[in-house]
Amino acid sequence: MRGGLFITIEGGEGAGKTTLITRLTERIYTETRRKTSRTREPGGVPIAESIRNVILDKKNTKMDPKTEALLYAAARRQHLAEIVMPALARGEIMICDRFVDSSLAYQGHARGLGIDEVWEINRFATEDCMPDLTLYLDIDPAVGMSRIAANLHREVNRLDLESLAFHQLVREGYAEVAKRFPDRIHTLDADKSPVELAETAWAIVEKRLQTP
Amino acid sequence: MRGGLFITIEGGEGAGKTTLITRLTERIYTETRRKTSRTREPGGVPIAESIRNVILDKKNTKMDPKTEALLYAAARRQHLAEIVMPALARGEIMICDRFVDSSLAYQGHARGLGIDEVWEINRFATEDCMPDLTLYLDIDPAVGMSRIAANLHREVNRLDLESLAFHQLVREGYAEVAKRFPDRIHTLDADKSPVELAETAWAIVEKRLQTP
Repeated sequence: MRGGLFITIEGGEGAGKTTLITRLTERIYTETRRKTSRTREPGGVPIAESIRNVILDKKNTKMDPKTEALLYAAARRQHLAEIVMPALARGEIMICDRFVDSSLAYQGHARGLGIDEVWEINRFATEDCMPDLTLYLDIDPAVGMSRIAANLHREVNRLDLESLAFHQLVREGYAEVAKRFPDRIHTLDADKSPVELAETAWAIVEKRLQTP
Repeated sequence: MRGGLFITIEGGEGAGKTTLITRLTERIYTETRRKTSRTREPGGVPIAESIRNVILDKKNTKMDPKTEALLYAAARRQHLAEIVMPALARGEIMICDRFVDSSLAYQGHARGLGIDEVWEINRFATEDCMPDLTLYLDIDPAVGMSRIAANLHREVNRLDLESLAFHQLVREGYAEVAKRFPDRIHTLDADKSPVELAETAWAIVEKRLQTP
């Protein structure tokens, strides 16, 4: 039994996740006065960071894709166990920037490991602590990429350098994942303005908070 | 398609795995003149060793049991991908000291994570490279422990210090796992002499080698 609320935000590059999370965190706190925090993996958890260092170590060129998927699931589990689960047990609201659906869309679908396969290990890692609701910001990758290109303050990361075709695959993956979890995942049109998106997101969260 | 043969040796502490592996490796080579190697995880694979370091780091006292299980599966996958699979592809015979069944018996059953749960993630890690056959050395834990106590040359490890009750649970776990994989796992009575055990083991391997 947990008293808190666990929300995850998903979407491709340039979909506007960071902006939405900032607005939504403030809005939830203003409306509910409940402790509301944002987090992201590995979330400053030393064990999860050690695992991430193994994944990202440039010497590890021989890493098998399945090894990588298992390591991401391990880091996710540790972040859940140390940060998210205790906060939910205290009745708090946690908003996480990307979670299991990112692994399903990116590694499962776009990288070709298989959504079912990647779900299998993530279910082990997360099934006793899945999000209560997930907001998926859906955007045409061409639009997302042009937003990123226009944002001079944003550091370009490894995924930004993938081809447009790869980001199309990620979008396909997310659509497939959203179909599998229709009760949990709400798809938002990320072409909308930040104000409209935050409004829609809050309406969904408010409804969820009112559900006993 | 692989031309090699993948054999794993399982059993509790003091069952005689090391002795059997030495004898069996020699016997197989003598009889077949095929390249036959013994291995064990992490098997000198740097990525798997980095993962093991995270597991064993004394600072990591907050490690969640599921994180640990995922990390073992990740290290196992990497050892498979870098050592076992290439050797099998070259048509060689590989004998591995402990493999997936150890995780099922120790972590799944004795530590209480659940055999099904631990199998789920190990299936992801190993299903395209499961052993062709597994020899499980079954021994009464009281006998196994007394053998270890009598062996002055053997360094006492962390598992040796577990209670007899824990080792009984491990034995129960192995029995359950052997029931689930009746075609793959052969249970050997480890009360027999090393010569008899090696003879029985070779008879099983020989039959398997003759199976098209």
